[in-house]
Amino acid sequence: MPQNERPFDLLNRVLGQLVLIRLKGGAQIRGKLTSFDIHMNLVIQEAEELDDGQLKAKIGTMLLRGGNILYISPA
Amino acid sequence: MPQNERPFDLLNRVLGQLVLIRLKGGAQIRGKLTSFDIHMNLVIQEAEELDDGQLKAKIGTMLLRGGNILYISPA
Amino acid sequence: MPQNERPFDLLNRVLGQLVLIRLKGGAQIRGKLTSFDIHMNLVIQEAEELDDGQLKAKIGTMLLRGGNILYISPA
Amino acid sequence: MPQNERPFDLLNRVLGQLVLIRLKGGAQIRGKLTSFDIHMNLVIQEAEELDDGQLKAKIGTMLLRGGNILYISPA
Amino acid sequence: MPQNERPFDLLNRVLGQLVLIRLKGGAQIRGKLTSFDIHMNLVIQEAEELDDGQLKAKIGTMLLRGGNILYISPA
Amino acid sequence: MPQNERPFDLLNRVLGQLVLIRLKGGAQIRGKLTSFDIHMNLVIQEAEELDDGQLKAKIGTMLLRGGNILYISPA
Amino acid sequence: MPQNERPFDLLNRVLGQLVLIRLKGGAQIRGKLTSFDIHMNLVIQEAEELDDGQLKAKIGTMLLRGGNILYISPA
Repeated sequence: MPQNERPFDLLNRVLGQLVLIRLKGGAQIRGKLTSFDIHMNLVIQEAEELDDGQLKAKIGTMLLRGGNILYISPA
Repeated sequence: MPQNERPFDLLNRVLGQLVLIRLKGGAQIRGKLTSFDIHMNLVIQEAEELDDGQLKAKIGTMLLRGGNILYISPA
Repeated sequence: MPQNERPFDLLNRVLGQLVLIRLKGGAQIRGKLTSFDIHMNLVIQEAEELDDGQLKAKIGTMLLRGGNILYISPA
Repeated sequence: MPQNERPFDLLNRVLGQLVLIRLKGGAQIRGKLTSFDIHMNLVIQEAEELDDGQLKAKIGTMLLRGGNILYISPA
Repeated sequence: MPQNERPFDLLNRVLGQLVLIRLKGGAQIRGKLTSFDIHMNLVIQEAEELDDGQLKAKIGTMLLRGGNILYISPA
Repeated sequence: MPQNERPFDLLNRVLGQLVLIRLKGGAQIRGKLTSFDIHMNLVIQEAEELDDGQLKAKIGTMLLRGGNILYISPA
Repeated sequence: MPQNERPFDLLNRVLGQLVLIRLKGGAQIRGKLTSFDIHMNLVIQEAEELDDGQLKAKIGTMLLRGGNILYISPA
């Protein structure tokens, strides 16, 4: 975990890895981050919606809009 | 499902296919994605509004504004 | 219904026709779309406000701001 | 009522006339539109606040910010 | 009250005068408008917060951000 | 208190002084304003969070984002 | 604590240190700030979510989007 990596560098480093995403309003998405763009729109594969940590729905591939993201964390 | 396809590449790849869209506030739209623009405004054909996965209304063709979209998933 | 018409092409194609508009917060407007601009501000004639599909108020001509629109559908 | 007048043309046409404005959150303003700018900020004279169509307060001259407007209708 | 004065002209004309400001969420501010900028940020002197027209708090000088303003009315 | 000082001039004049800040949602911050930028992001020292005028928490130094500020008042 | 350091200078000064972040909606994040960008997106390491000051969840590394931040305070 390199010191001082910039926010978008972090995204780049965790490509292909499992991430946990917290959305505004409290919903959570877990899945494999496979790409992102400058608006922090993400492509997530094998995406699952979680509710309080419990699996709520399996979504598969998902294009998640950046504007609603609270945080992204490598799982 | 190509690795590392960018968010807008994903939209391009699923043109003509069935997608599930989750909106802010929880509503869901299901239908065939036939076009999009840079704001992620979408044209959906044979669009249906779902409520908790249950059919709520058949809308037909729909221009859906990108700003309210939480995620888009190929169905 | 041409394949792949862009979101704003759809608006252009349905000029003069009846459309149903769903706003953020759930309100619906039905009326004849007579013009639009790049912000998706719309001019609607013979506009009616609907509540759960029931007529709530007859408004006549209306300039509807694009920023609050969830979707627009040819009726 | 000319066909195809653009949203801002409509505002221009009804200058000096009575308009009804619906705001986000449901409040209504009625009064004489005397000017507007590119952000759809409006100057309204003899403005009244309405609640469900009933007079709530007489405001007089008012500068109404465009960002909160849902729709504007010539009364 | 000149006809057709633009929204920012109105602000300019009432500099030094008492204004009533309605904010999103319903709060009201009353005081003397002494300056503004292009974002409609206002400097108000002898500012008072009102609740349903009743004095709630005396604030004195206040820099009020434009983004939360619903309308401004010369008192 | 110079007449007609612009909103950002007011901030400049009160640098080093105690200010009261009201945020969207109603929370209040009180502390010494030591700097600001063009987005009205503020650095506050000896910052305290207030709830209805009562001390809720002592925060110390704080970078407060401008986007959530309702008003700033020299205390 | 240098007088008059600008908001982004403060972030720069506390790199590598523990910070407390308050989000819109009331959630709190505590952890070590290791980088930021111009949108105030932050990378936080050893991040913890707090609820009313009590530990709610250990997140580890986190990319926190700037748009939802209310304030950032060196802990």
